[in-house]
Amino acid sequence: MEAMTQDLFPKAPDAHALERGEVLAPRFDANGLIAAIAVHAETGEILMLGWMNAEALSLTLSTGKIHYFSRSRNELWLKGETSGQVQLVVEIRVDCDQDAVLVKCLPQGDGGACHVGFRSCFYRVVEDGRLVERP
Amino acid sequence: MEAMTQDLFPKAPDAHALERGEVLAPRFDANGLIAAIAVHAETGEILMLGWMNAEALSLTLSTGKIHYFSRSRNELWLKGETSGQVQLVVEIRVDCDQDAVLVKCLPQGDGGACHVGFRSCFYRVVEDGRLVERP
Repeated sequence: MEAMTQDLFPKAPDAHALERGEVLAPRFDANGLIAAIAVHAETGEILMLGWMNAEALSLTLSTGKIHYFSRSRNELWLKGETSGQVQLVVEIRVDCDQDAVLVKCLPQGDGGACHVGFRSCFYRVVEDGRLVERP
Repeated sequence: MEAMTQDLFPKAPDAHALERGEVLAPRFDANGLIAAIAVHAETGEILMLGWMNAEALSLTLSTGKIHYFSRSRNELWLKGETSGQVQLVVEIRVDCDQDAVLVKCLPQGDGGACHVGFRSCFYRVVEDGRLVERP
């Protein structure tokens, strides 16, 4: 995993390069992953939070379709490959310390992102300590 | 960490309880953390992605101010304690498998969230493989 990460992306030499530089140098964690937030490019709705390893990020950039790494299945995953809910990339942003990416996308298929059946995975609000389903 | 997690939050007994139940049963990872996305409650702007352990999530719920766990400093952290950029909680959501939370908040102080000086940590877009700073 570490070797693959080094092959696909460089490491930032210092904090200034990491925070203000123009080189994409993602800081993958000990498991080789960064967090990826998928947002609907037209509505701004936050659809889901997933994980990417270097290969998933690289494929997302090269194909224009969001790829994740499934922590539970321990495998690379083209979102929508079976559900049809492919997420077409409109814009990719990276955060200050390059350990998270924000992907604005257009969900295909039925327009949803969540395997439970909701458009967004964040369909429950914490209210008085209980979870309540809310649009 | 595991003991503390069990003290503060229950575990969901099955997938249905996890995905459709009304009990908050966050699934902390091997390091005792879940991802937390902070969003501006009025503009919808995604401000930052941080991490919470059970104590940080519990304090966020009880105090109405977002607390994170710093992976680099390895300590609990009240956002804004030194910068003044306290994030007042408006709404907390949890995702389908309860390993991420989405917090709508109102940033205090100068209204920013990022230590580099931008309002949002996601101030760079990937364009043709290079990072470009964009509002």
